[in-house]
Amino acid sequence: MTDLDRVLADLVIANRILSHENVVDAYGHVSVRHPGNPKRYLLARSLSPEMVEQGDIMEFDLEGNPVAGDTRQPYLERFIHGAVYEARPDVVAVVHAHAEDVLPFAITAAPLRPVIHSGSFMGEQVPVWDIRDRFGDTNLLVTNMPQGRDLAQRLAGNNVTLMRGHGFVAAARSLIEVVRMSVYVPRNARVQRAAMQIGEIKPLSKGEIDARNAGYKPHSPETWRAWEYWATRAGCRDLLGKK
Amino acid sequence: MTDLDRVLADLVIANRILSHENVVDAYGHVSVRHPGNPKRYLLARSLSPEMVEQGDIMEFDLEGNPVAGDTRQPYLERFIHGAVYEARPDVVAVVHAHAEDVLPFAITAAPLRPVIHSGSFMGEQVPVWDIRDRFGDTNLLVTNMPQGRDLAQRLAGNNVTLMRGHGFVAAARSLIEVVRMSVYVPRNARVQRAAMQIGEIKPLSKGEIDARNAGYKPHSPETWRAWEYWATRAGCRDLLGKK
Amino acid sequence: MTDLDRVLADLVIANRILSHENVVDAYGHVSVRHPGNPKRYLLARSLSPEMVEQGDIMEFDLEGNPVAGDTRQPYLERFIHGAVYEARPDVVAVVHAHAEDVLPFAITAAPLRPVIHSGSFMGEQVPVWDIRDRFGDTNLLVTNMPQGRDLAQRLAGNNVTLMRGHGFVAAARSLIEVVRMSVYVPRNARVQRAAMQIGEIKPLSKGEIDARNAGYKPHSPETWRAWEYWATRAGCRDLLGKK
Amino acid sequence: MTDLDRVLADLVIANRILSHENVVDAYGHVSVRHPGNPKRYLLARSLSPEMVEQGDIMEFDLEGNPVAGDTRQPYLERFIHGAVYEARPDVVAVVHAHAEDVLPFAITAAPLRPVIHSGSFMGEQVPVWDIRDRFGDTNLLVTNMPQGRDLAQRLAGNNVTLMRGHGFVAAARSLIEVVRMSVYVPRNARVQRAAMQIGEIKPLSKGEIDARNAGYKPHSPETWRAWEYWATRAGCRDLLGKK
Repeated sequence: MTDLDRVLADLVIANRILSHENVVDAYGHVSVRHPGNPKRYLLARSLSPEMVEQGDIMEFDLEGNPVAGDTRQPYLERFIHGAVYEARPDVVAVVHAHAEDVLPFAITAAPLRPVIHSGSFMGEQVPVWDIRDRFGDTNLLVTNMPQGRDLAQRLAGNNVTLMRGHGFVAAARSLIEVVRMSVYVPRNARVQRAAMQIGEIKPLSKGEIDARNAGYKPHSPETWRAWEYWATRAGCRDLLGKK
Repeated sequence: MTDLDRVLADLVIANRILSHENVVDAYGHVSVRHPGNPKRYLLARSLSPEMVEQGDIMEFDLEGNPVAGDTRQPYLERFIHGAVYEARPDVVAVVHAHAEDVLPFAITAAPLRPVIHSGSFMGEQVPVWDIRDRFGDTNLLVTNMPQGRDLAQRLAGNNVTLMRGHGFVAAARSLIEVVRMSVYVPRNARVQRAAMQIGEIKPLSKGEIDARNAGYKPHSPETWRAWEYWATRAGCRDLLGKK
Repeated sequence: MTDLDRVLADLVIANRILSHENVVDAYGHVSVRHPGNPKRYLLARSLSPEMVEQGDIMEFDLEGNPVAGDTRQPYLERFIHGAVYEARPDVVAVVHAHAEDVLPFAITAAPLRPVIHSGSFMGEQVPVWDIRDRFGDTNLLVTNMPQGRDLAQRLAGNNVTLMRGHGFVAAARSLIEVVRMSVYVPRNARVQRAAMQIGEIKPLSKGEIDARNAGYKPHSPETWRAWEYWATRAGCRDLLGKK
Repeated sequence: MTDLDRVLADLVIANRILSHENVVDAYGHVSVRHPGNPKRYLLARSLSPEMVEQGDIMEFDLEGNPVAGDTRQPYLERFIHGAVYEARPDVVAVVHAHAEDVLPFAITAAPLRPVIHSGSFMGEQVPVWDIRDRFGDTNLLVTNMPQGRDLAQRLAGNNVTLMRGHGFVAAARSLIEVVRMSVYVPRNARVQRAAMQIGEIKPLSKGEIDARNAGYKPHSPETWRAWEYWATRAGCRDLLGKK
């Protein structure tokens, strides 16, 4: 199996996990930077993530143009992905989703903060990007590169940004890591909101966040354990590579 | 396949989706205007939406009388549908349901407002119809045309109205659109209520609502994507027509 | 099929529905008065409701003694059932359960009230019985007739009473009706609690409650529709009798 | 079947139940003291609890060293288990998990208290252990014996302790009892939090907690009923021994 084949299989797994764990429904998408060409990324054609198979994956340049004359219908909001890859050479995988539980923090002034250890990767406070600030009244969708770049600028060096009235973007160094964040950010949001109803919350300290980041190993047995678990639940254990 | 056959198949799909997505349980129903006769509508006999098949669908005139001597048991609240079709020539499909998550907004003075992009189709603020205002103490069910017409009057030009202590009505230009609203209105309600617990909410602006309405295309790939996804989850992918 | 056979089949269905709809888990039980002897009731042996089959059903006198020398292990809290049948000749079926969503109203002073039309059968306000008032510090379980009778006295002429720190009892004129209440009381509780977070609630009026009670028909197509739906979801449609 | 075989089968069942009841996901673990050697405990290798089979179970000394030259990858946080067994000779089984619903009480000053009868085994008030108090900024994981012993000291004579920003530990006299607590502590937490939103809560009294503890029989039909029910739901009824 070539590197590209492995990445394509992992991208299918990521689609299925995000759907099964209710991070995406018919909408929302996950991409990965092309392993052989950092100016390209891989993303499914316009299809519900639950139904994505390897043959549905298209290749795009960073401007969001399909390559190799692929004429299939792409996602309208693919510009999010290209703009993040363009601004962040360290990023290998991107998720955009509308996960319901993060949205309260995207429509109020209450900041989303890491309150559980598995939420530490969102950093000390999650920024909120409001498309209206720069683009006025729109349909809220990111449908061109200027909008995507404005969003990437708000994301800056963070791993996650919320989008007002819309959803979130997560960016990470691997597909496993971006899926992990996409599952745990909504969980952290649920816990934080519940806690805010019964008292003052105690977020993780800066030092704790740093300690967790410093210790993160993308290929540790603990990281793999969750990937294997989620893939099994999503019914695609057979697509898993060797640990 | 004739137009009528296609509409009947789509109505079965709509019944199954609404049940699978927890918009309806044993109660609640969805209708469509007859494609060949705007003075008639199609609606299942008194049966849980999850169990509706094509043979269960009856035809009614706008007063709620079954046509062609059909003597099967109809839904008690079918008058909702006829009254909306009568008042709103633009409406092609109607849902009435008791979806739990919208009900808090139907029994308090807090207005339900679009706070997420997928909720924009409910308009700036959702009206609440209270059967008691005009009909006094009833069993809360809409069981005749005067009640249905009063409800349709409160709905006016909106796409959604809540019913105090009871549920909601959604009206749209197509079955796909009315199902989409019926799934996303409860989601919007959940997000709004959760947000109200942690801060002041920022609803979509009038301009954003207008921009989304202007851009809506009932036959776009994005619209079809959700219909296909929900139908697949509901186990009736085989009933889908060509995209 | 004799009357008794029909009642036994319906009692199995009731057990399965209550489990599938999350009203009971390993604990909680449903009984029916013996159709041929009002001094007897039918209730499963000590078994999770999901697993109850017709052969698991025992017969008890109103004091909670198994009849016909049946030596199987009965439920510890069977005294609830006998005490209600003793006090309320109109009652044909009883449920006791710990449904999570009603419990907030059983451990605070906030009264549970009907806020949705399907909750009207609980009456204007649901009483709360506290075993501590009369029996001091106990394990909270109703394990003898004096406790059962005290509970039945608090239930009085109501259809539902909450039990502080424990659960609820519902009493009705038929198995279908008691199951229906057991599903809708938790739903009403969820809606009421959610609503209390966003504003002042508007409960059903006394006149509306009366209108709904007056119109209730245990064998109407609407009542059967829910029974058939729940039984189908619970996997025991084959046990349903003729409509 | 030897005692050890029975315990190993029960440990597999416990893993599956905790996963199926959403107490653990890919993370979290359950152990049991070795039936033939109180200085040893049994715990799966680093694997999601849902996937644990008998062959995956390793044996450890109380310091967390695998015995018999077993070189498989152990859980990072196994020190929790050994430290509790070391400090508490009465404890036979330990669970550590991140169950979402208890976490609001682990990141605020609101104490988790028993408000429902099935929550009585957590005692009058659940302590919260904060790793930062003694170890400063860490990744929040318990990765050595000093941390484990500090946690065990906070647990003291209780059955449950929360861990700030992380999860909980439950300790009990049997696997059945520790699983039961692990399922009911989150339920109690949900009910308590919901109740705190609508009024002042009434927890169980000290006398009620004592009465429940005094009456607890690990091998009663009521205890077995839940174990059998949960095992059946989790798909491993075939592993159950004789009642």
